[in-house]
Amino acid sequence: MAEFFKVITPAHAWELLQPYLGRVETELIGVNRALGRVLAQEIRAPLSLPTFPRSTMDGYTVRAADTFGASEGLPAYLEVIGEVPMGKPAGLRVGKGQAALVHTGGMIPDGADAVIMVEYVQRVDARTIEVLRPVAPGENILRVGDDIQRDEPLFSCGHLLRAQDVGALAALGIVQPIVYRRPRVAILSTGDELVPPHREPSPGQIRDINTYTLSALVEKCGAEPVSMGIIPDDLSALREAAQRALAGADGLVISAGSSVSTRDMTAEVIGSLGKPGILVHGIAVRPGKPTIVGAVDGKPVFGLPGNPVSAMVVFDLVVRPAIFKIGGCAHPPEPPRVTARLSHNIASTTGREDWVPVKLEIRSGELWADPIFGESNLISILIRADGLARVPLDRHGLVAGETVEVRVFE
Amino acid sequence: MAEFFKVITPAHAWELLQPYLGRVETELIGVNRALGRVLAQEIRAPLSLPTFPRSTMDGYTVRAADTFGASEGLPAYLEVIGEVPMGKPAGLRVGKGQAALVHTGGMIPDGADAVIMVEYVQRVDARTIEVLRPVAPGENILRVGDDIQRDEPLFSCGHLLRAQDVGALAALGIVQPIVYRRPRVAILSTGDELVPPHREPSPGQIRDINTYTLSALVEKCGAEPVSMGIIPDDLSALREAAQRALAGADGLVISAGSSVSTRDMTAEVIGSLGKPGILVHGIAVRPGKPTIVGAVDGKPVFGLPGNPVSAMVVFDLVVRPAIFKIGGCAHPPEPPRVTARLSHNIASTTGREDWVPVKLEIRSGELWADPIFGESNLISILIRADGLARVPLDRHGLVAGETVEVRVFE
Repeated sequence: MAEFFKVITPAHAWELLQPYLGRVETELIGVNRALGRVLAQEIRAPLSLPTFPRSTMDGYTVRAADTFGASEGLPAYLEVIGEVPMGKPAGLRVGKGQAALVHTGGMIPDGADAVIMVEYVQRVDARTIEVLRPVAPGENILRVGDDIQRDEPLFSCGHLLRAQDVGALAALGIVQPIVYRRPRVAILSTGDELVPPHREPSPGQIRDINTYTLSALVEKCGAEPVSMGIIPDDLSALREAAQRALAGADGLVISAGSSVSTRDMTAEVIGSLGKPGILVHGIAVRPGKPTIVGAVDGKPVFGLPGNPVSAMVVFDLVVRPAIFKIGGCAHPPEPPRVTARLSHNIASTTGREDWVPVKLEIRSGELWADPIFGESNLISILIRADGLARVPLDRHGLVAGETVEVRVFE
Repeated sequence: MAEFFKVITPAHAWELLQPYLGRVETELIGVNRALGRVLAQEIRAPLSLPTFPRSTMDGYTVRAADTFGASEGLPAYLEVIGEVPMGKPAGLRVGKGQAALVHTGGMIPDGADAVIMVEYVQRVDARTIEVLRPVAPGENILRVGDDIQRDEPLFSCGHLLRAQDVGALAALGIVQPIVYRRPRVAILSTGDELVPPHREPSPGQIRDINTYTLSALVEKCGAEPVSMGIIPDDLSALREAAQRALAGADGLVISAGSSVSTRDMTAEVIGSLGKPGILVHGIAVRPGKPTIVGAVDGKPVFGLPGNPVSAMVVFDLVVRPAIFKIGGCAHPPEPPRVTARLSHNIASTTGREDWVPVKLEIRSGELWADPIFGESNLISILIRADGLARVPLDRHGLVAGETVEVRVFE
């Protein structure tokens, strides 16, 4: 079979794949394990916060009017009627001319409408304070709902929970939010030359790299990698393994080897798994051109080039967004990016997006990207690199000194 | 006890803490679980990669000299003596005037010194090809060690393993690297007003937020949060809980409540746990000033303000670097940062670093940071924010339209 490329841009490949992607089921998760999970429900506040008026300062809670006109020269004298306990109802009522000691977070008693900070008060005796400046009504008080109003929309469905979001759910008593299950992504490496890393390779054999790199990349998307091991270059063995993998997972990545024959075989297998099958064969990106993008019954299926650099570039461009999409994430986090000045020219061709591994270095206070040139089959390039610099589709290349966007490896 | 602040900058606080920090023990980890772990050994390549000369193309492996002068008009004719199998020794020898079919990744047989791509070859009959252009010696071949040289230093001790690093370890057969154990960081919330989130708060009580936010932040540092629950505002209860927490963990974070009395109590407890005890009481940062930084027997101990915004700011400035340090990480990953234009003035004071929650929005192709003003005790501010904008120590504030650095929440 001749190699047949319908070469399209990475962005277009992603657009073609999107409509065919399903979504994993939902599950309940304890709020203490909810970091990095994706909400499968809209969250509206079930109650207002705070639920009672609270002091935001250490001081005395008073009727503001009793302090109007107070100054160091002419303090207001107030009767101290007690102390508001923490974690309990205030248990007292502040009348005209009265005050009660209150701590930060304590409840504002009935009758009071402000808190005067302890710094602006002098104790005269056990029952009396001098207030040295006025406070306005509401000062140093959080009223009911000042933080969050009941029924206020807080998080939309598809929101990826961050540390503070987990805190907010806890604050509202939402201890078991509904989230999307972590997608399971099967990874399958093909190649008669591959052995697992714990095996000593015989002459002609090499250890499998991509299962490990791809599993790690899947993990970084919040998904669960399912390693299916190494499959020999045999059509029926590969088809059978791919079917089995897809049956137990929500997506499949085949690290397809780099010879034309294994790529053809991968294409044939992906084409045979179900509908719609192959959507894109060949992406206008370098490295990574011989990528296959497909979908089967709502699950994304990828045939990635066997070269480590290609696999990593293509993972970012199409696999990563697909994993977040099937995991229900409405706005996947942007991979970290920096801009840097390029230290050497990079050659390219228009109509193709190039990604060049770079080392980042601060020189005279400026961030520089030093391209690491070399074949995309070298793992050493990736371990020396801090990120990938992008040469846009419409550029012939980049010139030393230009500003370049770098996707930083995490 | 009067509140006593020795106010120092966040950077200085971190410098003071560093020398007192120990390091966790090491353990062996399977390479398939090594992502995000920190190497506790230097890695030098135990072997060269590739271990045999490999073809980087699909084509014919030849003696380069046999192709010199070849062209479409005057092709070189070579005898095809066989095909190099994948994953096996080449099993043949290429003599003068001979060629063998080879696939990408296949072994280069003895006698051959180049590969001519299949595109530049025409098959004449079963035993003969026409070569349409010359190849140079070494062309399309990876020699032994071209990727990695034996004994080459690859990763230093303290290196945080990324996806490609895991792949490289696999490639070299390093299936059980020595890494630092994940640090265990105990988290303890104090406050008579706190209840766990699953409990319905009575009047005057609130649900605990910080245990959950802080646990999530600890998790993001690759460490293991150990929640010790809520401790009432009682000196001996807090001391006992802190001692117990520290005995079973590598570091301790006390979410210290926000009233002066609970902060004083936290300081007293941290001061009583062991040597050197409190190193810093009060940091020149807003919010977050009443922070306590200490160390006990090589373990960092922090008293963080109870306000969610303060706790998050201070975590980033001193707790995060400390966790990476005790976890053996030589170069902690930089938190993601962007620069944006500020939409409103931010007031500040020199001699204090201010961190202001902001919402990020692209308007007319430019990234803008919209400050979210409000009290640092509001969780709603954090859930609306995309990051924190920094007002440097030496600035009185920032002016609308200025460029500002924003630490983006992950």
